[in-house]
Amino acid sequence: MIAGETSRAYDETFTLSYVTGRSVGIGAYLVRLGQRTIQMVNGPLILTGYSALNKLLGREVYTSQDQLGGPQIMAPNGVSHLVVGNDKEGVSSIIDWLSFVPKDKFSAPPILDLPTDSPERDVEFLPTKTPYDPRHMLAGTVGPDGAFVPGFFDRGSFIETLGGWGKSVVTGRAKLGGIPMGVISVETRLVEQRVPADPANPDSRESILPQAGQVWYPDSAFKTAQAIEDFNRGENLPLIIFANWRGFSGGTRDMFGEILKFGAKIVDALRTYRHPVFVYIPPNGELRGGAWVVIDPTINEEMMEMYADKDSRGGILEPPGICEVKFRNADQVSAMHRLDPVIQALDGELQNAKTEQDAAKLTQQLKEREEALLPLYTQVAHEFADLHDRAGRMKAKGVIRDVVTWKRSRSYFFWRARRRIAEDGLIREMQRVDPTVSVQQGREKVSALASTAVYEDDKAFVAWVEESGEAIAKELEKVKQAAVKVSLAALLEGLSAEERKQVLAGL
Amino acid sequence: MIAGETSRAYDETFTLSYVTGRSVGIGAYLVRLGQRTIQMVNGPLILTGYSALNKLLGREVYTSQDQLGGPQIMAPNGVSHLVVGNDKEGVSSIIDWLSFVPKDKFSAPPILDLPTDSPERDVEFLPTKTPYDPRHMLAGTVGPDGAFVPGFFDRGSFIETLGGWGKSVVTGRAKLGGIPMGVISVETRLVEQRVPADPANPDSRESILPQAGQVWYPDSAFKTAQAIEDFNRGENLPLIIFANWRGFSGGTRDMFGEILKFGAKIVDALRTYRHPVFVYIPPNGELRGGAWVVIDPTINEEMMEMYADKDSRGGILEPPGICEVKFRNADQVSAMHRLDPVIQALDGELQNAKTEQDAAKLTQQLKEREEALLPLYTQVAHEFADLHDRAGRMKAKGVIRDVVTWKRSRSYFFWRARRRIAEDGLIREMQRVDPTVSVQQGREKVSALASTAVYEDDKAFVAWVEESGEAIAKELEKVKQAAVKVSLAALLEGLSAEERKQVLAGL
Repeated sequence: MIAGETSRAYDETFTLSYVTGRSVGIGAYLVRLGQRTIQMVNGPLILTGYSALNKLLGREVYTSQDQLGGPQIMAPNGVSHLVVGNDKEGVSSIIDWLSFVPKDKFSAPPILDLPTDSPERDVEFLPTKTPYDPRHMLAGTVGPDGAFVPGFFDRGSFIETLGGWGKSVVTGRAKLGGIPMGVISVETRLVEQRVPADPANPDSRESILPQAGQVWYPDSAFKTAQAIEDFNRGENLPLIIFANWRGFSGGTRDMFGEILKFGAKIVDALRTYRHPVFVYIPPNGELRGGAWVVIDPTINEEMMEMYADKDSRGGILEPPGICEVKFRNADQVSAMHRLDPVIQALDGELQNAKTEQDAAKLTQQLKEREEALLPLYTQVAHEFADLHDRAGRMKAKGVIRDVVTWKRSRSYFFWRARRRIAEDGLIREMQRVDPTVSVQQGREKVSALASTAVYEDDKAFVAWVEESGEAIAKELEKVKQAAVKVSLAALLEGLSAEERKQVLAGL
Repeated sequence: MIAGETSRAYDETFTLSYVTGRSVGIGAYLVRLGQRTIQMVNGPLILTGYSALNKLLGREVYTSQDQLGGPQIMAPNGVSHLVVGNDKEGVSSIIDWLSFVPKDKFSAPPILDLPTDSPERDVEFLPTKTPYDPRHMLAGTVGPDGAFVPGFFDRGSFIETLGGWGKSVVTGRAKLGGIPMGVISVETRLVEQRVPADPANPDSRESILPQAGQVWYPDSAFKTAQAIEDFNRGENLPLIIFANWRGFSGGTRDMFGEILKFGAKIVDALRTYRHPVFVYIPPNGELRGGAWVVIDPTINEEMMEMYADKDSRGGILEPPGICEVKFRNADQVSAMHRLDPVIQALDGELQNAKTEQDAAKLTQQLKEREEALLPLYTQVAHEFADLHDRAGRMKAKGVIRDVVTWKRSRSYFFWRARRRIAEDGLIREMQRVDPTVSVQQGREKVSALASTAVYEDDKAFVAWVEESGEAIAKELEKVKQAAVKVSLAALLEGLSAEERKQVLAGL
């Protein structure tokens, strides 16, 4: 019964387990059913004690419970979200976590009135084309001169969870001008997945599987979905995804490793997300093919919005890939004949060639010229293809909502998040008094109430909501009255004439 | 957008993909997002083509798309539910599958009016104490004399799905007297999980991991949850679980392999099951500890019921285990001193011993007697502990609803399933006219309408429902009128006096 109730609790409210000592069997299952888990180093999660296992196996295979479910097992497999050294650290981590959690499941998470870090300051750490630690992008870092280079979120607010698992993705919680947010970002460096040796199998060895940066693997796809599920339920966090993926790893190892299942879970998790989601391609980041597919805003248009920095790229294939499909060597050669004066002259001479010998010589010259030009044409073709993948093009095609400059992204998303929280809150109020109102209808009602200039300006909109309590309350009352009338009419229509008379007489 | 819609479709209705040719990238993801998959041998599911991968890797690693996502990858990893040899077989499998699927998401699956196999015949295949093929229990088999030994389900109706994956559990669909059902049963034999070598890593080799019978592993726990999710959504199948598990595999390999996550998924899937679930421990089957925890009916009391054959066992620990906790050697020795006349006589002599030498001799004799008796006492203790684990005890403790004899189980569950489908259908009708009616309240209303004798007899109840269309329609009308009145009152209460007057005047 407690298993069923804990499973329901994770779905309906905020759950967090702290494993301070040995948790066995149903004890271990309850921890996992509540999903969010902080594990103390001396608290193994096990199903069967090691001595019982040794008895079952008929030999002394295991020497401790830690071998079975200590942090060195449960952190790298993603059961434990955080590992702490002692109970004091454990309680401190619980309190830190709670600072992100709303007062009840219906409320937005607590926004600090006085942010510790101004939302209007610039973001100074710049993501590079070469691999870097994505944590620096989120939390800032210390520069070579010893000075702090601030990142996207409020200084000191980023708390990484699930850090030991699926290392090609970095997930956690942080504050943006005091607004609690969930965050997913991408490792750009090469990482290693370590699979420990199995003590019960003398032939097994620890194996180390390298994982490239900017690529989703089965574990990091599962981790991405897990983080989204956690943020969505009971935490009610606005989510920002710093999207920088070249795709999913599609080799035999990862196809066998059920990458299709875990990649699909990302779609499932985003589709059911009930809070604002911002997908943002950071500078020098790119988003391609299968990776774009699983985080595109059309998965959940009511909640998701997509943005890109002016120095980011997005498209199905990378330029060399698309050129191999749409502008192959033969196409490039025919372009040369259209554009290159030398080739055009040779073409003319060839047409008028008198002897076969002349023709052969000219053909040879043409071939040499074509070969000489090809690298240049390919380079130009790549550049041309790349023009399609820039932020301006994405905006023009309507696949992103706006081009947001990295340096000013903090202010932009601070106001966008506050605005979305305010607007979605109003719509939720409407839905409370009239459950038939869709999010789209709610937006229309809100936009009709505010002026267009206000509705289209995030900062002005937040101010308007704060000032317009009375007008909004009046509108809510109108929505409610209208809904009551519609419901009354529908209810009475379901009654027979006789019944209707009786009911109305009784009122 | 199609990714989001397919994810929603799996949640809300019946989805089934047939992979007849190469499905790439988003094509592969759509197949997985719809979850139920039939794969033709020549239809690989891939994310990136093998030649593009070779280019990326800079060497000729892969030689075909099949290596990446052919049936030899997608059947053992559980992405493909069924594999077929050609399109004719594929279409035939689709039609077979559709014979289990209801006409719409609100309806029960189609029950054959004239079952091809009498629900009243005995089940003749007998599950043994020694390992056997659980498919024989479900579908019957041919005996040593060449005659057919019928199993639990209608002859020829069992269709196994996900057969290549998580082999320690067998899942599929079958008919019971013409009623479509989902089924989960347990492999009792030792099976092997094969993990293929990774062509991209020259050091890797195929590895073969043995998996014991009657035990859940990460893959078979995931498979169990997947099958339950599939049966629940759009298929609306009553589910029978032939429970015969000693527990979950809790060694380092499987703890690292995220068994806690996949075991917990079984609880999540059962908690949200919206159709009748029967958990039945078959003869010579047993259900223990952690395995019981994840399929106990209290996870979802409105839908789940548990039964046991008279020759089955259920309890937390197996007898030797519980004796080691509750009746250790020291306890057994003290029982000897209470019960054994020889020991009692020696105890008396020892008390009156004159010399130290006599005492030592008697102590030695006592020790020898204790050692001689110990195996016997242990055996008796095990037998005593075993008495607690039998079907009669389970019934007396209220943890199972009934003791059902295997031989007659077909008739029992046929009528029980028809009754539950009929009763749950009535309750769903009530909830349609009054959404505030809980399943428990619905049961009470139905039981008040039928006589007690009828309500408690499955066969009589089914007949009563079929005969009582008019009485039931009248009751539904009453529920509806009552609900309308309550809703009207609540709605009017939400209006101001002025508004109320206005609305009532308008009616």
